[in-house]
Amino acid sequence: MIARILSIGTELTLGQTVDTNSAWLAQQLAELGIETVAHATVPDELEPIQAEIERAARDADVLMVTGGLGPTQDDLTREALARVMNVPLDFHAPTLERIREFFRSRNLQMPEADRREAMVPRGATLLDNDCGTAPGLRARIGRCDAFVLPGVPREMRSMFDRTVRPVLAGRGGFILQRVLRTFGLPEARIGELIADLMQRGRNPTIGTTAQAAVVGIRINARARTLDEAAALLDRDAAEIRRRLGDYVFGEGDATLQQAVAELLWRHGRTVATAESCTGGLLAKALTDVPGSSRYFLCGWVTYSNAAKQRELRIDAARIERHGAVCREVAESMALGARTLSGADYAIGITGIAGPEGGSPEKPVGLVYVSLASPDGCEVRELRLGEYLSRGEIRDRAAKAALNMLRLALLTSASQPKAAPEIRA
Amino acid sequence: MIARILSIGTELTLGQTVDTNSAWLAQQLAELGIETVAHATVPDELEPIQAEIERAARDADVLMVTGGLGPTQDDLTREALARVMNVPLDFHAPTLERIREFFRSRNLQMPEADRREAMVPRGATLLDNDCGTAPGLRARIGRCDAFVLPGVPREMRSMFDRTVRPVLAGRGGFILQRVLRTFGLPEARIGELIADLMQRGRNPTIGTTAQAAVVGIRINARARTLDEAAALLDRDAAEIRRRLGDYVFGEGDATLQQAVAELLWRHGRTVATAESCTGGLLAKALTDVPGSSRYFLCGWVTYSNAAKQRELRIDAARIERHGAVCREVAESMALGARTLSGADYAIGITGIAGPEGGSPEKPVGLVYVSLASPDGCEVRELRLGEYLSRGEIRDRAAKAALNMLRLALLTSASQPKAAPEIRA
Repeated sequence: MIARILSIGTELTLGQTVDTNSAWLAQQLAELGIETVAHATVPDELEPIQAEIERAARDADVLMVTGGLGPTQDDLTREALARVMNVPLDFHAPTLERIREFFRSRNLQMPEADRREAMVPRGATLLDNDCGTAPGLRARIGRCDAFVLPGVPREMRSMFDRTVRPVLAGRGGFILQRVLRTFGLPEARIGELIADLMQRGRNPTIGTTAQAAVVGIRINARARTLDEAAALLDRDAAEIRRRLGDYVFGEGDATLQQAVAELLWRHGRTVATAESCTGGLLAKALTDVPGSSRYFLCGWVTYSNAAKQRELRIDAARIERHGAVCREVAESMALGARTLSGADYAIGITGIAGPEGGSPEKPVGLVYVSLASPDGCEVRELRLGEYLSRGEIRDRAAKAALNMLRLALLTSASQPKAAPEIRA
Repeated sequence: MIARILSIGTELTLGQTVDTNSAWLAQQLAELGIETVAHATVPDELEPIQAEIERAARDADVLMVTGGLGPTQDDLTREALARVMNVPLDFHAPTLERIREFFRSRNLQMPEADRREAMVPRGATLLDNDCGTAPGLRARIGRCDAFVLPGVPREMRSMFDRTVRPVLAGRGGFILQRVLRTFGLPEARIGELIADLMQRGRNPTIGTTAQAAVVGIRINARARTLDEAAALLDRDAAEIRRRLGDYVFGEGDATLQQAVAELLWRHGRTVATAESCTGGLLAKALTDVPGSSRYFLCGWVTYSNAAKQRELRIDAARIERHGAVCREVAESMALGARTLSGADYAIGITGIAGPEGGSPEKPVGLVYVSLASPDGCEVRELRLGEYLSRGEIRDRAAKAALNMLRLALLTSASQPKAAPEIRA
């Protein structure tokens, strides 16, 4: 079964907003065994919307349309769909009543413009919106089953999960996907290590994508039954893991911080952070994970040298000797954070995020990451280069720190916890 | 002048990666007076790529294509373009030499697969790649000027800026865009306040998009000359600012943290942060801005109650009385951070980010934000609701805190700085 995806919105064609709905829908459809063969994006104009719906419906079994269902004058999808179906738009009183109730329950008056959302192409089915006002639509266009959802991501996803997914489940053959996430190995090197598995025409198909220093290895297996597809996936995933070892940190949407969180929980360990150039990004990453209060105790963002000395008890002479960006200060930050917080592990990061602040000896992108653990303290020097942006340098440094902690947790046996050194 | 954009990649059609290239290119083209009327995305398969290039070239003056220029077996854009042009692929020795040199200068051996990147459709022009190996291509297809760029965003943007932008500048009429960014007012309310400006058929056209609680007001003005377009933009922007006042915090890609940074610089003020549920996100936001070391002194992420007491000197009894999520603790965090750091302003945030941790009295999304300033200390209670994700609650809370500081800086006259209270 084949699908096409159509996103409607001038903010999309003019590039003001990045389209995330299409990628999400394509993933959902893939899990349902439906292959998306193309995406299209058109502006809030009647003719292009109508033309694209007609075109897509001609050669797809399923069409997912998002956008243009709101209450304003540039919301034209209902009208365009009605034209494609060659039917009038009918006013649907129960929908208007639902919309009024939506506003009433929030102590608000319904803006008159929202009446437009109660217009329905004759013969279309309504899809309930439990997060917003505009109902979605479902209509058959020739052999194509077309679904029209809101453009607002939260409303769209909820409507898809509740009203579309149950309808589509079981329709397609089976295409199962799995993505392995890796960090620390260049994409080209991964390509060499699994070159035989990546040959064209093979099933499963394997592709790699690099995004913000995380390389995703996408495995797609096709089969008549779910079990066969799963078996093909398992075999390839196991072989890739065997070859890449600890470079693989997770699957699917897993992040380095989730991998770290699971290891900290499993070993019953705690962590604290002391950041300078990353400015709080590492602590934020560690606390992204629900339940992080079980392992994350405390973080410092000692941006100024005064703060480093005052809060982490770092010797002023140490900073004067080599400046704030050096191995010694990174180490002192990690050790200070560990001592003060009583955590099992502590990370210290100091570096030059740029764009200013670099010099020939200490260029932009130079970052020292230190990990203090029950076994001692190690420091790693990163040279992230002068071509990454400030945001990218901060991001890569935080990821390198997370990975350092992850690898240390993987190699540490479950040793009895040493008594924490807490300063009263 | 009309443009279409085509993104190539199976990771895009299957939804593994979100397409950001199309939005970026559409913006660049708009600034050059070229209107993008549609985007399309196709997988790494020869027929769909060829068909979509042919279709797009039929009704566009400019076609931007990204992706499929790499060295692997699923990079098919060169071949597809050659088929559309009905020409053979020629081997271009100087390009191969450049690619070899790219690897040599990094002390690497060129993988043999990279030879493919030296194949060029006969009659196409090469576009230099200064960040990677694969050159881009430019070719005329009928009346369409087609540009083929790498899919890797950094390589694509650099190539566009250096080799495409100069070629396209001056070709189109003039479409100028401006985006005003607002925070704190619901999108529907903004729509009511500027309803007359948003009527269809008007020039400039005005649209609104809400993203992560920031509402962008997009103004597009069309005119024969640059000056006329700019004048139309200025007039509408001024009128919108007059009506919305301080709800407007910036333009274009401006963020709340940039607006705060500029105000802090202008007034010569400093800030410190004490966070619990936002976990470092507020400090990270404040340090996103280059030069933030001029105003950002220090941040605490006192995630555990022990850390709150130990690092910020918060009275244990205060936490016992009402728990960690209450006005009093938020206030104590802000005051503690201000006193300890010596900053002019300090923000304290404590709340329930979820998904667990809520109760009927203190639901998920309840957050207290406190701002300590030379004038005293205020606390605001936010009820962000139970329908936002953990990440969204943290994000909105940090934004609300930034906005609180922004508004305080806007209303404060340039008063002489009081002597900072620094604890030795």
